[in-house]
Amino acid sequence: MKSNFIVIEGLEGAGKTTARDTIVATLKQHGIEDIVFTREPGGTPLAEKLRELIKQGIEGEQITDRAELLMLYAARVQLVENVIKPALARGAWVVGDRHDLSSQAYQGGGRGMDIRLMAQLKQSVLGDFAPDLTLYLDVTPEIGLQRARSRGALDRIEQESLNFFTRTRERYLTLAAADESIKTIDATQDIEGVSAAIRQTLAQWLQVRS
Amino acid sequence: MKSNFIVIEGLEGAGKTTARDTIVATLKQHGIEDIVFTREPGGTPLAEKLRELIKQGIEGEQITDRAELLMLYAARVQLVENVIKPALARGAWVVGDRHDLSSQAYQGGGRGMDIRLMAQLKQSVLGDFAPDLTLYLDVTPEIGLQRARSRGALDRIEQESLNFFTRTRERYLTLAAADESIKTIDATQDIEGVSAAIRQTLAQWLQVRS
Repeated sequence: MKSNFIVIEGLEGAGKTTARDTIVATLKQHGIEDIVFTREPGGTPLAEKLRELIKQGIEGEQITDRAELLMLYAARVQLVENVIKPALARGAWVVGDRHDLSSQAYQGGGRGMDIRLMAQLKQSVLGDFAPDLTLYLDVTPEIGLQRARSRGALDRIEQESLNFFTRTRERYLTLAAADESIKTIDATQDIEGVSAAIRQTLAQWLQVRS
Repeated sequence: MKSNFIVIEGLEGAGKTTARDTIVATLKQHGIEDIVFTREPGGTPLAEKLRELIKQGIEGEQITDRAELLMLYAARVQLVENVIKPALARGAWVVGDRHDLSSQAYQGGGRGMDIRLMAQLKQSVLGDFAPDLTLYLDVTPEIGLQRARSRGALDRIEQESLNFFTRTRERYLTLAAADESIKTIDATQDIEGVSAAIRQTLAQWLQVRS
């Protein structure tokens, strides 16, 4: 089977880290051993610097929506060109914690940025590059934020309002419904239920592709 | 007279710092005292962080052309929204060391980035915001780089090839020829000659506007 780029998406507290372990176990059961992990924003020296600026903000200055989006794309193009594409080219699979869909949902939905600007920027920066499969872990913001809070202090983006996350989730659901490569997993279930759903969805997908 | 945004442009070693002093002296002779200085990339806490990454690069990673361009625009939108527009709104004049024309010339001309991508990004990020007057100090790369070298170590961008700067200058000249708000100054003259040309061009421009 050709190597593939699988992305995990969802709100804070959706269970992305547990999902990653489940995905890796399932891939290994299918004989896929060479797996590269990425997270966004981040995953290269420059992208991690940008992640820090985006997540922590900067003292004495408001980061504008447009600057945030441009920094996210700067980090993304570094990761795609310097890590993801080379890994896929040598035959490794790539499992990503977030990718472009996060920008569509958080900046497009949550922040309400212009859809045409979002589409132009995506096309200009990424062209036709896209994940082969995205597993979107769907939780309500209430459940997600409760889980995220129990892990410790919230970063700049996690401190947004409930309305922000409600808009973000709505955009996730809309985009998932319109794109066959995005599979929605009910992540309000308990951890075993979520893992079982991920295993089943991924195994089915692998079967069709093999 | 309404407040205006005046930008100084040109290759490394074109004499932008001296030009700034001449511009300020000329503005003051015309009774304009409230002047804000900017430089790009930079001029806000976040933009200065991005400047450092762009100028110094980052160990162990090649910065892609697209990431460089996106970081330049992230820095620019911060400066425009948080510094330049507020200054103009309160009636101050703004004198900028570089602005968008630098990206058009260096990334568009020097690096040969796609013109449509450049135009889309500019429109998406800046909309119709533009300098009222740009003074483009035209030098050959040979003269400019000789002057820049005599000032000390060159940064990541200053270390580009002579061909890079030749393409950059060509794009500057093409864009200046097509835009009435860009005035070309022959900056191969001695310092007194350049200053006299700036004074004359600026005084004429002020007279027409007053």
